[in-house]
Amino acid sequence: MSGQALVAGAGLAGSLTAVYLARRGFAVKVLERRGDPRTPGVREQGRSINLGLSQRGIVALREVGLLDRLRPLTVPMRGRVVHLPDGLRFQPYGLAEDQILHSVLRHDLNVALVDEAERLGVEFRWGHRVTAVDRAKPAVTATGPGGAEVHTADLVVGADGAFSAVRTHLGRGLRVDLHQEFLEWGYKELLIPVGDDGRPRTELRALHVWPGDDGLIVAHPNADGSLTATVFLPFAGEHGFAGLTEPAKVRAFFARRFPDTLTLIPDVVEQFLDHEAASLVTVRTAPWHVTTDEGRGVVLVGDAAHAVYPFFGQGMNAAFEDCSVLDRCLAAHPGDLPGALAAFEAARRPHTDVLAELSKRNFVELRDKLRSPLFLVRKQADLALHRLFPDAWVPLYTLIAHTTVPYGEALARSRRQDRLLGAAGVGLAGAALAGTALATLIRGRCRKQVN
Amino acid sequence: MSGQALVAGAGLAGSLTAVYLARRGFAVKVLERRGDPRTPGVREQGRSINLGLSQRGIVALREVGLLDRLRPLTVPMRGRVVHLPDGLRFQPYGLAEDQILHSVLRHDLNVALVDEAERLGVEFRWGHRVTAVDRAKPAVTATGPGGAEVHTADLVVGADGAFSAVRTHLGRGLRVDLHQEFLEWGYKELLIPVGDDGRPRTELRALHVWPGDDGLIVAHPNADGSLTATVFLPFAGEHGFAGLTEPAKVRAFFARRFPDTLTLIPDVVEQFLDHEAASLVTVRTAPWHVTTDEGRGVVLVGDAAHAVYPFFGQGMNAAFEDCSVLDRCLAAHPGDLPGALAAFEAARRPHTDVLAELSKRNFVELRDKLRSPLFLVRKQADLALHRLFPDAWVPLYTLIAHTTVPYGEALARSRRQDRLLGAAGVGLAGAALAGTALATLIRGRCRKQVN
Repeated sequence: MSGQALVAGAGLAGSLTAVYLARRGFAVKVLERRGDPRTPGVREQGRSINLGLSQRGIVALREVGLLDRLRPLTVPMRGRVVHLPDGLRFQPYGLAEDQILHSVLRHDLNVALVDEAERLGVEFRWGHRVTAVDRAKPAVTATGPGGAEVHTADLVVGADGAFSAVRTHLGRGLRVDLHQEFLEWGYKELLIPVGDDGRPRTELRALHVWPGDDGLIVAHPNADGSLTATVFLPFAGEHGFAGLTEPAKVRAFFARRFPDTLTLIPDVVEQFLDHEAASLVTVRTAPWHVTTDEGRGVVLVGDAAHAVYPFFGQGMNAAFEDCSVLDRCLAAHPGDLPGALAAFEAARRPHTDVLAELSKRNFVELRDKLRSPLFLVRKQADLALHRLFPDAWVPLYTLIAHTTVPYGEALARSRRQDRLLGAAGVGLAGAALAGTALATLIRGRCRKQVN
Repeated sequence: MSGQALVAGAGLAGSLTAVYLARRGFAVKVLERRGDPRTPGVREQGRSINLGLSQRGIVALREVGLLDRLRPLTVPMRGRVVHLPDGLRFQPYGLAEDQILHSVLRHDLNVALVDEAERLGVEFRWGHRVTAVDRAKPAVTATGPGGAEVHTADLVVGADGAFSAVRTHLGRGLRVDLHQEFLEWGYKELLIPVGDDGRPRTELRALHVWPGDDGLIVAHPNADGSLTATVFLPFAGEHGFAGLTEPAKVRAFFARRFPDTLTLIPDVVEQFLDHEAASLVTVRTAPWHVTTDEGRGVVLVGDAAHAVYPFFGQGMNAAFEDCSVLDRCLAAHPGDLPGALAAFEAARRPHTDVLAELSKRNFVELRDKLRSPLFLVRKQADLALHRLFPDAWVPLYTLIAHTTVPYGEALARSRRQDRLLGAAGVGLAGAALAGTALATLIRGRCRKQVN
């Protein structure tokens, strides 16, 4: 398939879409509100957001031949270090080589994707904001330093994020469902710098988690030995962002709730007060695509189509998987763009709707359930059974992060496992942890499922 | 309380809000995108939308002294005429005088409210569209024939409908939840004209319903002896709006599904093809209000805060009840606008969220369940019990349409009744219809609840 493609947004989803479309033969232009991320100084100015690349994202990057080139920018995370009041616990992700996550700076990954897109002939229009969409052509009006420009295309892709201008303009006067929900918690990012001895201040090859029902922290490692910690707190209340506005209060809060951060982040109070709290949003919408009788169309991908809370670490991975699925749909419907876009939405939307719910649920887990002994026993039984029967019994987290089983199927499978675990009884499941006779029993049952 | 109030929207919610605020001592300005509805010719150009005024709306209009003045414009509806293949059934709404609905043309009601607002000193700015909201002041920018004007006020009320510009501008950059869902069915309005003999073509003092799972019609009477029928159909499919585009198909469809409409509406095919299909939307949002440290604020009312499907006939009634509840909150918090607006949202939003769900549910009832014998037996048992125990047993529809019991409480009460009915068994409930021994049994039980 070939023709003119126009992508709105040169973030992660937009630049990878551009790469895929260019490889498929489209002449691609990308409009981006912000300036070129490669401009000197931009990397340093931006927030040091980093992300966990998991299986779905890895598969997409490998498809376009970028994975090996990106490897030097990433830090493998082989498990989770949980920071508890009585010390650290290490939970490995899994035994297999593909059961690791890769931490990467959003900025570095974005630049690599933009570079690759340009190498494939993609034209980037930096500093151009989408101000109108004419879905009948389709055409996009972009307003830049030189005024407004109208770009027509065969395929317009809205990859412009959770508050997508393409989505807003596309939906005008159409029956578009939109669900936008903000979490009552927000986040701030804090840098855990390299130690004075030039070495990392904590285990680098892991994701770090400080769980809690009144605040939690997740930290990803950076290639330079530093880590980026994301502090999640309620907006409201004395111990939320609204209340933590004075140095003494902030110090006391971290000392009480996350004592080891005072050592890991010497200037934790200054950083906390200096950074803005950002918010977390879930967006679901339908439809994702609109086509014309002439066989052209507009489609949404990534956060523009489905923004999720970050608690399953799937935002970027789901966006990259979109690009891969869209590409497969274009391949399966040569010369039929409306058919390809319809197939894409039908194949994909049910699964990202599930991801939105799972990401909400994981927040509740991280916040509330980690204190429930019953929940922890089940969780551990789940992992123990996975070690015993690696193929037949796969915990939900593993299915989401370490496989490309579609999200909806992953949820359905995990529900079947939950019922089995519930039926076996939590007590028995606990016994399974100790490797007792139950394991043999269930082993027989699971073998049957596989064969 | 007094001060400057600015209302966006001069529709039903906006003009009644203006009346309430003027009565409470505010200097009120109203901005309206459209022109003055009293301009000659406007009444004839507009669609002949009419609405069923029920208890909640009646109470609000009575509070501002408008009910008696409006009476000549309304037609009482003492029950429901159901059009079935084998003839008509009349279902009276209830025995009490307050258990009737009043049909009224939207245009006539709107003009009466605007007249009353002007009489109280309210200033209307016709042809002024809201193009920006500064919530920090608050101020509203309105663009009209003479360009943009900025209006500041102590209280800004967004009463500008389901696609409220105030809501959109107010929420920019705030954590605003928004749920917007369109029904896969839409509607067209058809006029059932007065007969050639100058008399109504069907029973005038009733609401008419043609139920069905593949299309339904609801008709309200007009004061001039005509009726306005609203045809609800799926958008898609051969027998939806998309498929019914040729005269022969339209005639065949009405002849098969709604045979008596061919007599009632001699030009049914022409009207159907001539009118645009409109869509139906549910909107829920939060928060409804934003206040400043100086004690000023912005609040949403009516469809701007909570648009619902029309299947419970509560859109206008809920909007009027908003005006009444807001006024009570202003009275209860003299000199404390932020307190009044917070009390309004806390008192009201949970109930309109329930109304949104009930209105969706009533669509499913009208569409699917009217064919279920089990459902009909329960429904009739419900009404029979209400006749036996008018105070102790009140069907949900009666609670919503004929009382001012808050929507959430109405639902909770109806659930208790449903459980009782379920416990008694549908068979026994059916027996209650025949006035057998069960009635005595339940009578004893309900008496206990009342005493």
